[in-house]
Amino acid sequence: MSKSSDRVGDACCPPGALLHEPLSAVAAADMAVKLKALADPVRLQLFSAIASHAGGEACVCDISVDIEVSQPTISHHLKVLRDAGLLTSQRRASWVYYAVVPEALASLAVLLGATSAHAAAGVPA
Amino acid sequence: MSKSSDRVGDACCPPGALLHEPLSAVAAADMAVKLKALADPVRLQLFSAIASHAGGEACVCDISVDIEVSQPTISHHLKVLRDAGLLTSQRRASWVYYAVVPEALASLAVLLGATSAHAAAGVPA
Repeated sequence: MSKSSDRVGDACCPPGALLHEPLSAVAAADMAVKLKALADPVRLQLFSAIASHAGGEACVCDISVDIEVSQPTISHHLKVLRDAGLLTSQRRASWVYYAVVPEALASLAVLLGATSAHAAAGVPA
Repeated sequence: MSKSSDRVGDACCPPGALLHEPLSAVAAADMAVKLKALADPVRLQLFSAIASHAGGEACVCDISVDIEVSQPTISHHLKVLRDAGLLTSQRRASWVYYAVVPEALASLAVLLGATSAHAAAGVPA
């Protein structure tokens, strides 16, 4: 592990950080967890379906219609996204509702080159 | 696989596409390949080291100093990034030089929420 201290910080990064300075090992490890969770076609579709749903949250009942995998598989993928800090979940009555964590997505967008202001806007209302 | 045609397109996406419309299965598969290649701490560090190097390109000789893995391992990781379309490579004399593909990174940044103009700026000069 690199011990350099003059690299992109551990918690947050300036816009386009990936392009401007070598990432620290700690920042790279943190980002890799989130990228790995998103690096699956079904999880990307699920994440996108939740993020674009009215109010920025959705239950499995809302999103399973358009994604052709079984509900247990969907639940597994949602758990991976939640464990990576990309989604939160909340049980209401019979359903668990999932919502995107705007800061998590913003940190990835900023890393990859977004303006911080735009990325910080996160999920649309 | 979904056959819906009213989703985010296959080749390019509007800014913040992931947040505004459910991704198509084709677009999700394409993005997952690039995200998977980046979803490794060492590959993120290598990619960042190349992107932030003078001229936006570097050889293994430039970047291996600060990353504590063997040169064969570095070469393997660079091949993964190149196969995913995130890097190009060019042999000059004894060394292979790697450069970031700006469009590949821009497409990920745009997907995650960047403004298209900023993301399209790609790698700094």
